Amino acid sequence: MAEKSKFVPGWYEERTPDGSYRSLLKWGDPEGIKHPNSGLVKLVMDEFGLDEARLSKASNLSLEKIEDTVPCKLHPEHLAALIKIVGAENVHTDTYERIKRSYGKGMLDALRLRRKLIENIADAVVAPRNTEDVRKIVAYANENHIPVYIFGGGSTVTRGMEATLGGSISLDMSRHMTKVVNFNEIDQTITVQAGMSGPSLEHILNHAPKELGAKRKYTLGHFPQSFEYSSVGGWVVTRGAGQNSTYYGKIENLVIAQQYVTPIGTLQTCPQPAAATGPDFDQVMMGSEGSFGVLTEVTLRLSRLMPENRKKFSYMFKNWEDAMAASREVMQGEFGFPSVFRISDPEETDVMMHLYHIADSPADAILQKMGYKPMQKCLMLGFTDGELGFSINIDHKIRRICKQYGAFELTFAKVTEAWEKGRFTDPYMREDLMDFGVLIDTLECGVTWSQMPEVHKKVHAFIKQRPHTICMTHISHAYPQGANLYFIFIAKMDTIREYLDLQYGIIDAITKSGASISHHHGVGKQTAPWLEEQIGKQQMDVIRALKKHFDPRNIMNPGGTLGLDMSPAQANREWSKDLEG
Amino acid sequence: MAEKSKFVPGWYEERTPDGSYRSLLKWGDPEGIKHPNSGLVKLVMDEFGLDEARLSKASNLSLEKIEDTVPCKLHPEHLAALIKIVGAENVHTDTYERIKRSYGKGMLDALRLRRKLIENIADAVVAPRNTEDVRKIVAYANENHIPVYIFGGGSTVTRGMEATLGGSISLDMSRHMTKVVNFNEIDQTITVQAGMSGPSLEHILNHAPKELGAKRKYTLGHFPQSFEYSSVGGWVVTRGAGQNSTYYGKIENLVIAQQYVTPIGTLQTCPQPAAATGPDFDQVMMGSEGSFGVLTEVTLRLSRLMPENRKKFSYMFKNWEDAMAASREVMQGEFGFPSVFRISDPEETDVMMHLYHIADSPADAILQKMGYKPMQKCLMLGFTDGELGFSINIDHKIRRICKQYGAFELTFAKVTEAWEKGRFTDPYMREDLMDFGVLIDTLECGVTWSQMPEVHKKVHAFIKQRPHTICMTHISHAYPQGANLYFIFIAKMDTIREYLDLQYGIIDAITKSGASISHHHGVGKQTAPWLEEQIGKQQMDVIRALKKHFDPRNIMNPGGTLGLDMSPAQANREWSKDLEG
Repeated sequence: MAEKSKFVPGWYEERTPDGSYRSLLKWGDPEGIKHPNSGLVKLVMDEFGLDEARLSKASNLSLEKIEDTVPCKLHPEHLAALIKIVGAENVHTDTYERIKRSYGKGMLDALRLRRKLIENIADAVVAPRNTEDVRKIVAYANENHIPVYIFGGGSTVTRGMEATLGGSISLDMSRHMTKVVNFNEIDQTITVQAGMSGPSLEHILNHAPKELGAKRKYTLGHFPQSFEYSSVGGWVVTRGAGQNSTYYGKIENLVIAQQYVTPIGTLQTCPQPAAATGPDFDQVMMGSEGSFGVLTEVTLRLSRLMPENRKKFSYMFKNWEDAMAASREVMQGEFGFPSVFRISDPEETDVMMHLYHIADSPADAILQKMGYKPMQKCLMLGFTDGELGFSINIDHKIRRICKQYGAFELTFAKVTEAWEKGRFTDPYMREDLMDFGVLIDTLECGVTWSQMPEVHKKVHAFIKQRPHTICMTHISHAYPQGANLYFIFIAKMDTIREYLDLQYGIIDAITKSGASISHHHGVGKQTAPWLEEQIGKQQMDVIRALKKHFDPRNIMNPGGTLGLDMSPAQANREWSKDLEG
Repeated sequence: MAEKSKFVPGWYEERTPDGSYRSLLKWGDPEGIKHPNSGLVKLVMDEFGLDEARLSKASNLSLEKIEDTVPCKLHPEHLAALIKIVGAENVHTDTYERIKRSYGKGMLDALRLRRKLIENIADAVVAPRNTEDVRKIVAYANENHIPVYIFGGGSTVTRGMEATLGGSISLDMSRHMTKVVNFNEIDQTITVQAGMSGPSLEHILNHAPKELGAKRKYTLGHFPQSFEYSSVGGWVVTRGAGQNSTYYGKIENLVIAQQYVTPIGTLQTCPQPAAATGPDFDQVMMGSEGSFGVLTEVTLRLSRLMPENRKKFSYMFKNWEDAMAASREVMQGEFGFPSVFRISDPEETDVMMHLYHIADSPADAILQKMGYKPMQKCLMLGFTDGELGFSINIDHKIRRICKQYGAFELTFAKVTEAWEKGRFTDPYMREDLMDFGVLIDTLECGVTWSQMPEVHKKVHAFIKQRPHTICMTHISHAYPQGANLYFIFIAKMDTIREYLDLQYGIIDAITKSGASISHHHGVGKQTAPWLEEQIGKQQMDVIRALKKHFDPRNIMNPGGTLGLDMSPAQANREWSKDLEG
């Protein structure tokens, strides 16, 4: 049926104009476009009752230029002092630049920009040239009580760098703090400045013989969906995870050492892979989300680039219970872990069948006859990494386990290859859908295996109680003791209020279900109002004590990050109630 | 030659008398004896010029009974209050019990007991029956400024639980707090009280079908040399490591959640295997060594018991450089890690050749002809764990790498089996040697691979500058980025001063070499004076801030632990200068 629908919606096809609202709300490259395919269009039309007429012309494209209308409230004396530190060419006060360094890529950011709502932007963007500049800026800001926000890659979905307090500056780490500080091939480590982008780092590592004079090629193995527009510093301070984390680990498993410039001095952690000398200071600092200090340098452990050893796999299970049980057995089997390992629930599997044009195809009919039924069957896909014998053994063991749990092997169908094609470009589809009022957003949480069925059930039920709302869920980033559970909703919405009701409700449902409220997105200002309820007062007090220690004047990412100094409205989970529409 | 020496020293052969000094300084079981074998005796006689006459009769056996002579300085009112909480049967004030719960198994503890030097013992030993008791005791102690020390297994080698401040109590966690709290076979986790001993835990896990009604048998995989006399709580608060940690991880990689009773309340960490919700609170609390609060419960991740899959290996390298390079390649090869992985430097290899009766044997002569020369050749031994295919692949890869680096395969010679036999019982030999004035002690540190040659060279050189001192070194607990470097010295010494000069000098040499001053023994009060020099003021200040937060009245393990409140003498690294002889 999907093949029959030749209708193509009136997508916006132009290059996004420089300086426009759309250029800030849009994901990635201004030239970058990836339209939803016919399978997804059909699904959206069916689910939301959108006909061809409604989809023929996009509206509210936000192509208007952002005028330089928001005055800088930073005292001229401070501005002069900052210019003295970094040079005039590294200080910007125009509205466009300030929005760019304060808004992220969350749905609320996009909704506000679509409505031309500008709030909480830094008053000046300052680009330090090196760690010494950072030291001087932080010292000056601390002395003068100037709030400091930090921009890395700009892909936060938690309002992480939003400049909630006025008279503030944003440190743009992406401009100069992008260099390799040290490469140690004996230890297989690289030390880079925190503003380095993901693609820059991977390019250098993948071409290490040429770029670093190395004997081998390397990879960090850290590929979040935001990879192309994310920074090393952002990964680290939010405790991010790449899509290959089941093998490579989350960023906190890849970090060997860090350097932070804080209001009370510069902290450098130790380079040894393990120690018994008090708390693990790397794990104290990671997750601080800019609220303890500015991450300036990171030492990362590297893996060898061996894509030739990769084994791809995909399986279809008859139901969610079998898919969960098989996934758990894979993670507890002690034969090493696959690299990408992703298991979709029935509703997500259904959407993927549409996306990959398998739904309603002859192959689908055969699957159905074999007992793999729509809205019951579950897709597992992934691939291995590592040394060849290790990789082959994992692939064999996964096959054996999946067959034990009644799965049908789809590897021949290149499902993993289809997923790989879209792994970094899917976010481009968001703007197309939003052009027609259809919102797609995600929330994720950490669960133990034993929590998983209940968390899935409760959160899914909450989302589905809203009429005409698609809820896709998958397991990714797995461990022997649990996994990340990732929820994606697609809904037709007209107001920000409607969006927040659903979004906040999901966070609430996750908290009530006993899951960890974030596995890798971080907390930021969005999820902060639920943090204490989830981790408890005692742990929250530890964050408060560390904050007070590092930042006694509360200048580092203040105004609600990590729930540290929330306004009453934010604490009450209603801080956006005044937002228009 | 070793075979020819039929001389047997006049070892002490009796059961150690109950209540004696020897019963406290001696390792392990009162009946337990393991004499140095003829190979080691020959080495000791040669190195220290001890003839048969000198070794015919042991002296200073410390068989005398410890009299109940040290008065309890705790106010009767406090004693009554504690008795009210836990019952009279759970409060002890006799000298013997108080020494037992305050002294550890470090060389300085043994030296003091041999000389009947009793200092820094708690005034009362209190055995809580449950977490509620711990809460009440800590609250009472906090209210009344009573120092609280904590006894788990008693195997500290860092003066970890020494009651430096007077008027104090020791919490004996080993008496009642030894139970399983929860077992979750879906998540493969167990929650136990912190006083549970290593052997109890392993027994329960190895017999899980019977003990826990489980479907499978499990293991924690954590086997420090002190295993038989260590506690789960001790492992956790000191960041210990088992000899199989290269596969299973250090204890901080095995802990999923913890519960601490602190002076400001009870902290319970979250059960998810990963999160992005601020600092990692488990990693904040581990390494606190009793100075933030009392660890009451620990949730640990389990592995499946599969000894049938184990592959043992051993190789001889021509020199230390090749042995280090091959070890690094094994750890960076991305085919999974071996479980036990131990590489001895030339001097340790030489001693092991004596111990295993290979030195001066025909086999040794053949090795020598092949270029594996005494005081140059290096021994690697170990075994794999995990699923069979995984285990076989690692064994194959290690063989290939070792051959590339010119190693000779010794697997047929059962060297690993010989090492396994002594892995938990070697500490028994210490008392035999001490009976003749020969001291054996250990120090260990964490290094990166690139630091390793320099650290080894510097520390080894420091130890060897002392005449007639054996210095054995091995790599154990390895990582892709580095390893643990373990130093053992054997020396003839007459005074505590002589011992401390060497011991403190080694810690100083480790610090100056840039290594981490402990990889798994912890810091305690022994290594505390070097902590700030190694980790730096900024990190030390984080420990101080956390201490102030959790324990504002400084009642938890006070008096020098982790360098928090050292006396001027301790800070000056001379706090034992008044010790007799």
